[in-house]
Amino acid sequence: MADEIRQQPAIFADLLATRDAIAEVAATVAQRRPRFALLAARGSSDHAALYAKYLVETLLELPAGLTSPSTTTLFGAQPDLTDVLLVSVSQSGGSPDLLEVTESARKQGALTVAVTNTADSPLNSAAELSVDVRAGRERAVAATKTYGATLLALYLLVDAVRGGTGEQAAKLPELAETTLTTGQRAVDEAVGRYRFLERMVTTARGYSLATAHEAALKLAETSYLSARSYSGADLLHGPVAAVDADTAVLALASQGRGGAAMREPLEAVAERGADICAIGSAAADVPAAHRIPVPACAEELAPVLEILPVQQLALGLALARGFDPDNPRGLNKVTRTR
Amino acid sequence: MADEIRQQPAIFADLLATRDAIAEVAATVAQRRPRFALLAARGSSDHAALYAKYLVETLLELPAGLTSPSTTTLFGAQPDLTDVLLVSVSQSGGSPDLLEVTESARKQGALTVAVTNTADSPLNSAAELSVDVRAGRERAVAATKTYGATLLALYLLVDAVRGGTGEQAAKLPELAETTLTTGQRAVDEAVGRYRFLERMVTTARGYSLATAHEAALKLAETSYLSARSYSGADLLHGPVAAVDADTAVLALASQGRGGAAMREPLEAVAERGADICAIGSAAADVPAAHRIPVPACAEELAPVLEILPVQQLALGLALARGFDPDNPRGLNKVTRTR
Repeated sequence: MADEIRQQPAIFADLLATRDAIAEVAATVAQRRPRFALLAARGSSDHAALYAKYLVETLLELPAGLTSPSTTTLFGAQPDLTDVLLVSVSQSGGSPDLLEVTESARKQGALTVAVTNTADSPLNSAAELSVDVRAGRERAVAATKTYGATLLALYLLVDAVRGGTGEQAAKLPELAETTLTTGQRAVDEAVGRYRFLERMVTTARGYSLATAHEAALKLAETSYLSARSYSGADLLHGPVAAVDADTAVLALASQGRGGAAMREPLEAVAERGADICAIGSAAADVPAAHRIPVPACAEELAPVLEILPVQQLALGLALARGFDPDNPRGLNKVTRTR
Repeated sequence: MADEIRQQPAIFADLLATRDAIAEVAATVAQRRPRFALLAARGSSDHAALYAKYLVETLLELPAGLTSPSTTTLFGAQPDLTDVLLVSVSQSGGSPDLLEVTESARKQGALTVAVTNTADSPLNSAAELSVDVRAGRERAVAATKTYGATLLALYLLVDAVRGGTGEQAAKLPELAETTLTTGQRAVDEAVGRYRFLERMVTTARGYSLATAHEAALKLAETSYLSARSYSGADLLHGPVAAVDADTAVLALASQGRGGAAMREPLEAVAERGADICAIGSAAADVPAAHRIPVPACAEELAPVLEILPVQQLALGLALARGFDPDNPRGLNKVTRTR
């Protein structure tokens, strides 16, 4: 897991260097002019899909939704999907439910795109178009480099659909390197601080909501922490009641509109005595007991950097608690659900 | 809270008796033939919206998505929403973010429907059409009767759009009465069993996923439990690692395809030593340490009944733990987010 986290700057550089393959897929998408986007995924990939949903809604100004695979796989719904773009996201490209959702959507008229780390997967065959996230084989069960690579690939895809050339992302390999190197000390301090933690809430708004969800999952699967995840707005609609002085709140706060909107929910949890750990380029601007800084970048790319210290934290906590982050109990690398 | 839970059979009867008002809204929706549906909500209403998403995808066979309000309120996206149906769900109809999402969607060409318990709310004025869930004023901070009433109102709306007359729901008032009366003893036993519980996971598939999410929220806001919620499929994609013998798994299992798909994830958590509490009409068919039976009904209506023992459990646990379920710490009845 440590190795794979470390490989991300190089993986980002490779993805940027081979951006043309993604731009070609994007050209077909742009030409078909979809009117609505659906995203299908499970687990970590579902958080990457949520990131893509924000990109699609904001950068392409298309209405979008995350699919509920069971309406296809269990209930057999056959909607008319003319003018719909379906993006299926899966590291392995091997889960039967995503395969069925993709096959069904293609038959129903959707333009289907598979985004995977396994170019010869069944999902790639099922979809009309494919994006390879090029992260190389991932051996640790907990997804790290495939998550980062999938985020960047999805950004490059959406950016290319709107005619962009990915230039906002050009510095990401360098910034990712800085994040991993200069953030390590603050991560180590957080590992010590949360060594005996039992309750965590993760939270964010905007693009970074994907990071909050992925943080909760990564900490649950490697450190077996009971980590719940909410948008900063939803947190105020109820769950804040369960936040107390025994709760750590891991908050994503990056420069931009999403990070700025975190002040109110973080003041509410600070008032309740929670221990706030702020991660991001605007970590200094929110109330927090501990901060892990991340270099600034375009707001819509912040999740690609923010996830790096989160992965380091999950790894460090798992080791500090005596667990094996490469082989979490009860999990396999490829999960097959229907 | 106890009173308001108890009122639901009568509220369901009243909603069925005044179904014509909903059918009128449905007739306009059907006439406009939307091609995509978006649902906007926060907190408990967001879980009702998720239920509606399954109804729309399965019964109307329309692609659907839950909105991310921030893409409108923070990022100012202005998508073309011609042919889109936007359903905004809110007990109070007072949260500024939903108001802005609804106003913006209407301007962008969507057919907008407000589903609220406050017929003169700003959200009702903003939307072209309105559905009144007719639950009467709710005084406890934690939503109970407004949640049940909203589910049934959304069902009647979707059913009427497809030309139905709500006949599947005709027996719900009587079945709700039975659920509340005959289930109380099993609920009381569960309150005793989980009096000192610290970790809970809630899970379901299909329509009942909304119940799992609402259960986690209700238990967090009244009993301050750290309750996480996952679809039975997503649970297997990582979070199952954090399930152990100290975890209670509250599982919805109703007769039908969603309940049947719960066998595999429940076998996985049982293997990990978790204490399973199964709620629903198929509770007897899944592995469980404790069961709360619910009368059988059409699968798509099961969430309207299943939520009743969940609300009783949240109330009972809050009282057993010495908390005030009517006034959870840190919450107000109307939450205003942007």
